[in-house]
Amino acid sequence: MSLINRKLEHVEICLYEDVEEIVSTLLEDVVLIHQAIPGISVKDIDTRTSFLKKQISMPLMVTGMTGGHQELGKINSTIAEVVEEMGLAMGVGSQRVGIEKPETAESFRVTRKMAPTAPLVANLGLPQVVKGYGIKHFKDAVQMIEADAIAVHLNPAQELFQPEGEPDYPVSALGTLRDISKELGVPVIIKESGTGISMETAKILFDYGFSIIDVSGQGGTSWIAVEAVRNRRKGNWKYNSSKLFSGWGIPTGASLIETRYAVPDAFLIASGGIRTGLDVAKSIALGANIAGMANPVLHRATQGKAQLRKFFEEVHFELKSAMFLTGSKDISALRRAPLVIWGRLREWVESRGLTLSTYENIRKRA
Amino acid sequence: MSLINRKLEHVEICLYEDVEEIVSTLLEDVVLIHQAIPGISVKDIDTRTSFLKKQISMPLMVTGMTGGHQELGKINSTIAEVVEEMGLAMGVGSQRVGIEKPETAESFRVTRKMAPTAPLVANLGLPQVVKGYGIKHFKDAVQMIEADAIAVHLNPAQELFQPEGEPDYPVSALGTLRDISKELGVPVIIKESGTGISMETAKILFDYGFSIIDVSGQGGTSWIAVEAVRNRRKGNWKYNSSKLFSGWGIPTGASLIETRYAVPDAFLIASGGIRTGLDVAKSIALGANIAGMANPVLHRATQGKAQLRKFFEEVHFELKSAMFLTGSKDISALRRAPLVIWGRLREWVESRGLTLSTYENIRKRA
Amino acid sequence: MSLINRKLEHVEICLYEDVEEIVSTLLEDVVLIHQAIPGISVKDIDTRTSFLKKQISMPLMVTGMTGGHQELGKINSTIAEVVEEMGLAMGVGSQRVGIEKPETAESFRVTRKMAPTAPLVANLGLPQVVKGYGIKHFKDAVQMIEADAIAVHLNPAQELFQPEGEPDYPVSALGTLRDISKELGVPVIIKESGTGISMETAKILFDYGFSIIDVSGQGGTSWIAVEAVRNRRKGNWKYNSSKLFSGWGIPTGASLIETRYAVPDAFLIASGGIRTGLDVAKSIALGANIAGMANPVLHRATQGKAQLRKFFEEVHFELKSAMFLTGSKDISALRRAPLVIWGRLREWVESRGLTLSTYENIRKRA
Amino acid sequence: MSLINRKLEHVEICLYEDVEEIVSTLLEDVVLIHQAIPGISVKDIDTRTSFLKKQISMPLMVTGMTGGHQELGKINSTIAEVVEEMGLAMGVGSQRVGIEKPETAESFRVTRKMAPTAPLVANLGLPQVVKGYGIKHFKDAVQMIEADAIAVHLNPAQELFQPEGEPDYPVSALGTLRDISKELGVPVIIKESGTGISMETAKILFDYGFSIIDVSGQGGTSWIAVEAVRNRRKGNWKYNSSKLFSGWGIPTGASLIETRYAVPDAFLIASGGIRTGLDVAKSIALGANIAGMANPVLHRATQGKAQLRKFFEEVHFELKSAMFLTGSKDISALRRAPLVIWGRLREWVESRGLTLSTYENIRKRA
Ligand SMILES: Cc1cc2nc3c(=O)[nH]c(=O)nc-3n(C[C@H](O)[C@H](O)[C@H](O)COP(=O)(O)O)c2cc1C
Ligand SMILES: Cc1cc2nc3c(=O)[nH]c(=O)nc-3n(C[C@H](O)[C@H](O)[C@H](O)COP(=O)(O)O)c2cc1C
Ligand SMILES: Cc1cc2nc3c(=O)[nH]c(=O)nc-3n(C[C@H](O)[C@H](O)[C@H](O)COP(=O)(O)O)c2cc1C
Ligand SMILES: Cc1cc2nc3c(=O)[nH]c(=O)nc-3n(C[C@H](O)[C@H](O)[C@H](O)COP(=O)(O)O)c2cc1C
Repeated sequence: MSLINRKLEHVEICLYEDVEEIVSTLLEDVVLIHQAIPGISVKDIDTRTSFLKKQISMPLMVTGMTGGHQELGKINSTIAEVVEEMGLAMGVGSQRVGIEKPETAESFRVTRKMAPTAPLVANLGLPQVVKGYGIKHFKDAVQMIEADAIAVHLNPAQELFQPEGEPDYPVSALGTLRDISKELGVPVIIKESGTGISMETAKILFDYGFSIIDVSGQGGTSWIAVEAVRNRRKGNWKYNSSKLFSGWGIPTGASLIETRYAVPDAFLIASGGIRTGLDVAKSIALGANIAGMANPVLHRATQGKAQLRKFFEEVHFELKSAMFLTGSKDISALRRAPLVIWGRLREWVESRGLTLSTYENIRKRA
Repeated sequence: MSLINRKLEHVEICLYEDVEEIVSTLLEDVVLIHQAIPGISVKDIDTRTSFLKKQISMPLMVTGMTGGHQELGKINSTIAEVVEEMGLAMGVGSQRVGIEKPETAESFRVTRKMAPTAPLVANLGLPQVVKGYGIKHFKDAVQMIEADAIAVHLNPAQELFQPEGEPDYPVSALGTLRDISKELGVPVIIKESGTGISMETAKILFDYGFSIIDVSGQGGTSWIAVEAVRNRRKGNWKYNSSKLFSGWGIPTGASLIETRYAVPDAFLIASGGIRTGLDVAKSIALGANIAGMANPVLHRATQGKAQLRKFFEEVHFELKSAMFLTGSKDISALRRAPLVIWGRLREWVESRGLTLSTYENIRKRA
Repeated sequence: MSLINRKLEHVEICLYEDVEEIVSTLLEDVVLIHQAIPGISVKDIDTRTSFLKKQISMPLMVTGMTGGHQELGKINSTIAEVVEEMGLAMGVGSQRVGIEKPETAESFRVTRKMAPTAPLVANLGLPQVVKGYGIKHFKDAVQMIEADAIAVHLNPAQELFQPEGEPDYPVSALGTLRDISKELGVPVIIKESGTGISMETAKILFDYGFSIIDVSGQGGTSWIAVEAVRNRRKGNWKYNSSKLFSGWGIPTGASLIETRYAVPDAFLIASGGIRTGLDVAKSIALGANIAGMANPVLHRATQGKAQLRKFFEEVHFELKSAMFLTGSKDISALRRAPLVIWGRLREWVESRGLTLSTYENIRKRA
Repeated sequence: MSLINRKLEHVEICLYEDVEEIVSTLLEDVVLIHQAIPGISVKDIDTRTSFLKKQISMPLMVTGMTGGHQELGKINSTIAEVVEEMGLAMGVGSQRVGIEKPETAESFRVTRKMAPTAPLVANLGLPQVVKGYGIKHFKDAVQMIEADAIAVHLNPAQELFQPEGEPDYPVSALGTLRDISKELGVPVIIKESGTGISMETAKILFDYGFSIIDVSGQGGTSWIAVEAVRNRRKGNWKYNSSKLFSGWGIPTGASLIETRYAVPDAFLIASGGIRTGLDVAKSIALGANIAGMANPVLHRATQGKAQLRKFFEEVHFELKSAMFLTGSKDISALRRAPLVIWGRLREWVESRGLTLSTYENIRKRA
């Protein structure tokens, strides 16, 4: 199957098969504390924050999904247009296809055309670095969309469960990537793709100098589940095992806490199962700088700009609601909002040897 | 929609739509300890307590609900008559309508007519203070029903999810309110309306000198759910978000503990999801001075005086039963009754950094 | 309704209505630890223990249930015959009826006839002491069945929810009872009847010199549920409230721990929801000296001696199985068997301020 | 019923009745932590380990099941052939029948014929030692299959619930066994058979010098459930009690932790409910040296070699997947992989007085 067809199939599976919310983000175990006297007016709430030296209207980006085919370019175009209009940020899907098949580059480029001022994030995978991508490829990817940063995705689980996957993830690739990043001119974001960043991995990233991390944890789109569908369709022997591992990963809530705990000063993007403005608010309060969404945006984008706009408006209202009701006049106040962490999330954190009272200090300082 | 019609719609929704007990009060996580030798006779149990310098037959008030229309006046009249007869206390609904449309004042006044000796509580909202209400309006409200106190309700969540809500809740309003209260002659009660008082809010109230607090927590009537119904009926865009937030708030059990912990000497009213005399007993043991009910009283009141009387008799019997079986001869003994706090409520309290053994001392002292 | 008819109705309700296991004993939260090398032979296991200076074949008694009518006498006779044959112990139901209506005494006396050597326990209620019963009545009750002890039952919950109940439970009755007991010649057992003994009550009992306690906790027959049935049948206004309180009480597992913790040297009978030999074994390991069963014995007794015998044989085998698999060669070894206390029971104990590691020492010493 | 027929019936029941996974291994309460940068290539993962001085391709053995009849010999043959081919290890079922009825020995011998180089494990039960088996019988069993070790199974629970069981498990049998083992020439493995090894039992084993232990815990095949089926079929009076005890035992996850905690230097085999390569991986990370499976292998073996091979390939892939995604390049790295222990398993461990932070050190050192 060609790379392009695979991209199409991925989008189709994400749209029509059951690959989401197989397990939980554990964000349901976070309760923001209601403040009956918010001390502010809803009209004065400021949801703006800065991301990649630009200002965005709320702490939300659409994380990298697609490109590499005309149909996918249309999706990118729709998202970019609404993102620009609403003051959000956006990433594109892996640009390997755009680099290796230049005729598809337009499906990425369109994002900058439709979103001339938004923070845009290019996208390549760590496996490309392992397989020899260097500064030239990275510059190509960045220039293709005049990106403000490039996300380098980690997705060892998906690669493993792909019908023919045999992934290779040496730590040394981070050294190579660091060298590339020095010449690149835009920052590098390290991002998972739905199975989460652990505290151990976060420390390694920090040691290599990477300080923008998209945790992309478990609880939203499961790429192992996506590959399970593909294995099922092909009658591939990895089917049972990919079903078994569909729940593998670190829940987004846990991943956020682990990463913030390990790297108090990182810029954290909370993604993986973020579905509402309340999720965005919880993420910020848990220690994220901004949140990210992929699959829910894809769904609305295929329904048209109006639907997508309406969705972001709801998300914005929900975020503002959570901010108002916790008495948080701006994003940095939200980061210090009192909360309850209970249930499984609490157990996770304690079982990992982390202390919640210490975490309280860390998250508020972040 | 006029203010009067909205009042009617609110009552109709509370009577006929599903807006109650969406989430839990967490009172099910409180177990009063059975004492096989109560050490008392059921006949000698004294459920009386004092509220607003008057004696009431049991620690229960009907919290403010209605008024502003002839039909609603009938409900007020029914409640007031039974309240007087049974020695309870009662609040009226927000009197803004009674002040702004004097022709509706009679629907409030009727409560004092029917309940000449009961403690009656007037009602206005903090938003009115923000919008300029001063001592004159407060005096009007109090005089309208010859009130023993006035409750100032906080309901930022409802106001936010109302089709056109854009609430404004500056802390400075508490300063204004304090000044008003000094001239008013009757005490001010600060009350939530179903989403609860946090420990942070309780401390602010205490700093401004307000020491009678109705926590009105989550687990009973959800005013966000009420507005979700209204948004649904109007096809308003806030519908999804108001559904999402229907579970927002601090469970009554948690709110009681937080508030008592923060303000050991406050006079606390436990309301929000109080449905039986056992709930009343648990509330008192958890630290409340009296309990309050709204929606269940509304339902019985529309069925007539006999039903309402029967309901209060059951509640009284259940309270007495809990007192007898815990060996509590009077309300102050009940406040010191041994209990188990487990499950989610325990997790909540611990996650908030509160110590249950310290709380044991605080609640028994209160 | 006459006292005799009420006794008949009670038995009928216990046999045919749903009044059992409404809530849990929490014994499911006790796990006896399997020992793969028991170190013993199943043939050498000794399940005997002593109770009231007699030896019984296993630590099990049938707790007091019935008498007062010819039909009930038959049940007593069946139970007594099997109890004698199998070397168990037995209590009779409250003998007030036997004393006040001497023509019914035969239905009690039959137990001693059928069980000439078994430990038999007479039965009266603390309310009788309050209402004036003295040494004469107690002697009558004891002599009626040549009892080895008399159980004085506490059942404030049932009395309260009876259609006309207005119970009176002064602590002073314990003083009177102590005085009676000094003259009585046989020991007094204090027993609950399905709602459990708390640590506070246990301490009071100890202070008054009562050191044989049947905790009879929650999880088996609920006498409040029995009265709820009677209230339903009569259309009595207490129906709703008795339903509400059907889950009231201290689970047998929790009650055992509380009582053993409070009175390390007491002789404890674990009853209330004991249904199998595994329950018996868990009770002993949790700190009981013997266990007790009522309702399950009643059911089998009405099916005939063979059924009852078969039931006790199963219970005996199950007890022996638990002893073998925990490597406990006799009852005192079982009392020190390692176990896990988790789930709700663990939460209960901790929430009551008890320390499980301390309890480990207490129960093994008992 | 003859011994041979019983062996056949056991296999038949394990294949066609519901005797598995009645309760949980608690391995679902173990989460291996995803590492987004594994730091290795999937191609370089080394799953080999050594067992009984031989190298095996992954840490998995088929634990002892069968033999004693021509049909059962076929199953042994199938398993042995695939085990040899795939580089695994294998045990046979109890060889008592092979010793006492030499005409059945061939059904055991076939394993060595089909698996000339694999580690093979002979099998006898501790009850045989009690009943007089000595060095001669043990040598016979070992020689029958040229075994690399002999497993001595403990199964007091099954023996007890067998229709005529009256087991005898003196500790002294361990002394006899130690003496036998000194002369035997191959090591002795002590194994449970589905109800688990406790920390107390592990210490006894260690004191007697046995340091290879197969914990065979609860959560997979329940031999009590197997006997319940047999009791049901025979109308035996032990039926109810064997049903009741079907959940008896120590969950495999808990048993592993207990045993590793008690005997840090033992060689541990994790079996009982191991069903996937993910279970194998969790077992190793929890402290096992290798894992074992019985029933799932039996099922595939009766479907033929191809099915069994496919199954082991899946297991191998799943193990490798877990190793890759935790960044464990070999088995000793997997043993130190970070993990979460939560839920019931965490409660079990804490309730047993074990400290999870201490355990972290022990398991990583093992
Ligand atoms: C259709 C689709 C394609 C994706 N492709 C990429 C990709 O090329 N590069 C990448 O870094 N992440 C990719 N992702 C992962 C997302 O960025 C995100 O990390 C993940 O889906 C979890 O977020 P969600 O639960 O909101 O979908 C893709 C997600 C989807 C739904
Ligand atoms: C129909 C209705 C109208 C209400 N109106 C008011 C009001 O005007 N002012 C106020 O302070 N609270 C108002 N409340 C809130 C109640 O006083 C109470 O805080 C809340 O309903 C939770 O209690 P419950 O669960 O017993 O209903 C109203 C409640 C109901 C059911
Ligand atoms: C039909 C019946 C009658 C009972 N009558 C008495 C009684 O007269 N005196 C008493 O002390 N307990 C009485 N009990 C309570 C039992 O002794 C026991 O404490 C309670 O039923 C809980 O045990 P169980 O769950 O095994 O039934 C009675 C129980 C039953 C089922
Ligand atoms: C059909 C069958 C026969 C077994 N026979 C023996 C045996 O003879 N000796 C023994 O030590 N274990 C025997 N076992 C127990 C297994 O070795 C293993 O400990 C137990 O089944 C738990 O593992 P599982 O859940 O993977 O089946 C047998 C298991 C099965 C399924």
